[in-house]
Amino acid sequence: MESTNLSRQIEFIKEVDKLKYILRKTKLFNSNRNENDAEHSWHLALMALILVGHANVQVDLLKVIKMLLIHDIVEIDAGDTFIYDHQKSHDNTEEERKAAKRIFGLLPDDQAAELIAIWEEFEEHQTDEAKFARAMDRLEPLLQNTSNEGGTWKEFGVNYEKVYAKKQVIQQGSTTIWHYAEQLIDDSVEKGILKK
Amino acid sequence: MESTNLSRQIEFIKEVDKLKYILRKTKLFNSNRNENDAEHSWHLALMALILVGHANVQVDLLKVIKMLLIHDIVEIDAGDTFIYDHQKSHDNTEEERKAAKRIFGLLPDDQAAELIAIWEEFEEHQTDEAKFARAMDRLEPLLQNTSNEGGTWKEFGVNYEKVYAKKQVIQQGSTTIWHYAEQLIDDSVEKGILKK
Repeated sequence: MESTNLSRQIEFIKEVDKLKYILRKTKLFNSNRNENDAEHSWHLALMALILVGHANVQVDLLKVIKMLLIHDIVEIDAGDTFIYDHQKSHDNTEEERKAAKRIFGLLPDDQAAELIAIWEEFEEHQTDEAKFARAMDRLEPLLQNTSNEGGTWKEFGVNYEKVYAKKQVIQQGSTTIWHYAEQLIDDSVEKGILKK
Repeated sequence: MESTNLSRQIEFIKEVDKLKYILRKTKLFNSNRNENDAEHSWHLALMALILVGHANVQVDLLKVIKMLLIHDIVEIDAGDTFIYDHQKSHDNTEEERKAAKRIFGLLPDDQAAELIAIWEEFEEHQTDEAKFARAMDRLEPLLQNTSNEGGTWKEFGVNYEKVYAKKQVIQQGSTTIWHYAEQLIDDSVEKGILKK
């Protein structure tokens, strides 16, 4: 049993390597190279570890990190969806649920069920852990775009109102980080890298 | 104070983006592209989460994951050292200690001290968490090289004895995973992708 479990786990570990090929729209800091989902997930998990002291309420850091390590794995099958896309909604599509079932389903059954539940919890943004994890996911591209002279905002013509609407959920995870983020957004308007 | 801390933390978060440019010798699974340290760190943290049930003793998973998320950050200044390099020892050089001081030193003092301590614990391989974390760090390239027809073993002429010597520390973290790894090494000799 133990060795069957291990074989299934190794299959999963090999399969998720594909996340390193899924490119996001945002670029690395001060760079012209697109970020991939694996390095993005690493960065968010590390950010959670560093910033957890600013969460509105005490959160289970291990659970937050689990969420962030796995939150984009469904994109191996479903692809990356740009957050400002008009055509396609970002959250928990049928396609993503199917992907979760296939990819996490490579694991032993109890582990598959646990990770699917954690992924769904992240997608539903209801628990304190999910809210803080989502704050990390919204903060990183904000830091990238402000480091990149507007980055994807400029490239795809995204305006202040849309950015503000997407970013304000940060305050559900941390009002301290939201105040910082709001200031960054205001500064970006002043610098002319984000249009009102 | 809170906002000074946050500013320092954001500086650190931006600085460690550079880990995405540090290339390892090993290639992605079934691929010809070198892996970078950020995606490598993500993969190891996820592996720990998946494989922790095979640890020889119960370990603090959050601490293992913290170790793996930060273990290569010093390479931003010190560069990647190939594990089979004859000239340069891999572990905890003066250069790496200086890098840890500079990079983690961007953080608020208490957090810097905490992460430097965790990094040193990883490097010293004495605690159960450090042993299990190192097992992950040795397992991933083994999986990659066996998926890549010998990968870096072939490219750099590394033989069975050297591979066995480097990999056997896996058993300090997990004998179950070591048995699996040993089998992979033996299969590689049989397939002719690793020379005795």
